[in-house]
Amino acid sequence: MSATLASTPAADGYRMPGEFEEHQGCWIAWPERSDNWRLGAKPAQEAYAAVAEAINLSEPVTVAVSDRQFEHCRTVLSPSIRVVEISTDDAWIRDMGPSFVVDGSGGRRGVDWHFNAWGGLDGGLYFPWDRDERVARKVLEVEGADRYRAPIVLEGGSIHVDGEGTVMATEECLLNANRNPDLSREQIEQALFEYLGAEKMIWLRRGVYNDETDGHVDNLACFARPGVVLLTYAEDESDPQHAISRDAEERLQRARDARGRSIEVVRLPSPGPITITAEEASGVDAVAGTLPRRDGDRLAASYANFYLGTTRVVFPLLDERCDERAGEILRGCFPEREVIGVPAREILLGGGNIHCITQQVPARREGV
Amino acid sequence: MSATLASTPAADGYRMPGEFEEHQGCWIAWPERSDNWRLGAKPAQEAYAAVAEAINLSEPVTVAVSDRQFEHCRTVLSPSIRVVEISTDDAWIRDMGPSFVVDGSGGRRGVDWHFNAWGGLDGGLYFPWDRDERVARKVLEVEGADRYRAPIVLEGGSIHVDGEGTVMATEECLLNANRNPDLSREQIEQALFEYLGAEKMIWLRRGVYNDETDGHVDNLACFARPGVVLLTYAEDESDPQHAISRDAEERLQRARDARGRSIEVVRLPSPGPITITAEEASGVDAVAGTLPRRDGDRLAASYANFYLGTTRVVFPLLDERCDERAGEILRGCFPEREVIGVPAREILLGGGNIHCITQQVPARREGV
Repeated sequence: MSATLASTPAADGYRMPGEFEEHQGCWIAWPERSDNWRLGAKPAQEAYAAVAEAINLSEPVTVAVSDRQFEHCRTVLSPSIRVVEISTDDAWIRDMGPSFVVDGSGGRRGVDWHFNAWGGLDGGLYFPWDRDERVARKVLEVEGADRYRAPIVLEGGSIHVDGEGTVMATEECLLNANRNPDLSREQIEQALFEYLGAEKMIWLRRGVYNDETDGHVDNLACFARPGVVLLTYAEDESDPQHAISRDAEERLQRARDARGRSIEVVRLPSPGPITITAEEASGVDAVAGTLPRRDGDRLAASYANFYLGTTRVVFPLLDERCDERAGEILRGCFPEREVIGVPAREILLGGGNIHCITQQVPARREGV
Repeated sequence: MSATLASTPAADGYRMPGEFEEHQGCWIAWPERSDNWRLGAKPAQEAYAAVAEAINLSEPVTVAVSDRQFEHCRTVLSPSIRVVEISTDDAWIRDMGPSFVVDGSGGRRGVDWHFNAWGGLDGGLYFPWDRDERVARKVLEVEGADRYRAPIVLEGGSIHVDGEGTVMATEECLLNANRNPDLSREQIEQALFEYLGAEKMIWLRRGVYNDETDGHVDNLACFARPGVVLLTYAEDESDPQHAISRDAEERLQRARDARGRSIEVVRLPSPGPITITAEEASGVDAVAGTLPRRDGDRLAASYANFYLGTTRVVFPLLDERCDERAGEILRGCFPEREVIGVPAREILLGGGNIHCITQQVPARREGV
């Protein structure tokens, strides 16, 4: 119940809506690989479950899980959460799932990007990744949505859109030679415009310091609404994150979006620095070909990595010295939404955060 | 999105409708195990696909498939067929899938029976069967239907109902010591009545000769409508099937259904005898613990093993000497449906037929 279309979203009048627009639901994939998640992924599963339950009070959640973990996952989650079998290589559905696009006549379709585990054999995070590569297609079958197969390597977390023609991304990731080495910056922009129904690019330079995704924008900054960007900002000038954030802020302040607006930047505090403890590192299986988790490694912690649900914002609790301030800023940005913090260190230990582990299904639009 | 309920269908006012009542859709599971299906299951997959396409013109079909076969299955089937990942041990969703029950207020739920691969360690057909055991629950998640967990071992193909209070089954299967050895005939009847919303049992003695399911009723006979049963009938008195069919006919002619009606029996011709060829047997992997497929073994071929779709009857083509007559009889029974024959020898070689590989999802009933 999902046809693969030969056209493109732009040609068909489809666009990717902003995450702040209304959702029909949200997908999450269940973590289990013991060479990325400590203690057989049990602490991570608890954290994922808390995120799923928090979002499920905003919009219906579907959790994708392997056959092996199906029974356990079904048992620990509320019955109102839908649990479906989908095999994965890991649990980052933002990156391997489809990016949904809509038109103004009630149509909803999905873009299935090529996926190479954040860099393939040249700096990717694990091998193989063929199960991840099939995830988007399976999600679209369950959702009954037709599919565009985009001809580029891209992860959903490496882009943000304002739903009104603007795409935001980092050069560090999208122009990395381990993604689309044969495409120029202009060709990549053109592919994004075709498959996201957009027309204007805002390029940031780098993502969060030491981010193993090669600097996904969704860990650095996001649109709160058209014309307003939330940006993780390290005030400490000795922190390598400071220069990255300052450069991003300057680029945003110079930018104009697709509608010609200038961008208002709202700073989020930068947690930490947060590092992996020896105990945490010791709980992860050592496997050749998978990125190791080492005692003392700095984690790419960021409050920008939150989920912007229809009625709830679910953000990561990362550092008690600034969790509260992050929550206040988010409440200021989203006065009509409930803002909920969920303990997220166990998700961070696996290499990402709440935005990375979620994928919204936008509501259908009629007569827009 | 599927809660497990502590009550029973009968207590909640639910019943299993007759297969001749309107459907919302149909499920099929994709064959792949090479120790049951010859030549890597490729000929069987072709036959299953033809069945799926034929039924899809009557009602929407969903095919459940493993991750390994997902891409191939998605490629060979029409885009209008939904393909979802569900791991199985084999491909008989009639037996491992849920039996759907409905009430008169638009409710639809599923009964998830215990499954032991047609006899467990005492004559079952393969080991292990844990993936099959999880299939019903996964189907109910995708369908968004709440679940009753029935406390008995039962396969969906071992019962037929008329939707008006009557259950038909064989003693050979339901009273077999390898299913529910601790339950009496009366206790089994009571469980069926509770979980199917029924009140009257019609017991036949044995199923089709040499049927490896221990004589599932769905290979022998079925309700065309309340009060009318189609029965496979071997006219040749030297065929061991003759005595089985004659005994079944006599029992049916003596029976009264839940509404007090006598039963009209319509005979279907008995194909064959059909046996496995040496070439067919040689294409199956030999694996200890799985029922072998041997040159010369008689197959339990029967035209009663058809799918009764909302607008189409899809029946197996098994023997050109009587396929046409079987089709004529079915057309006589179902004048408002299109009756379609599909080549089914490759399904038969795996141990069952079209009814065994399908599971209807009944339409919801309002104001009944």
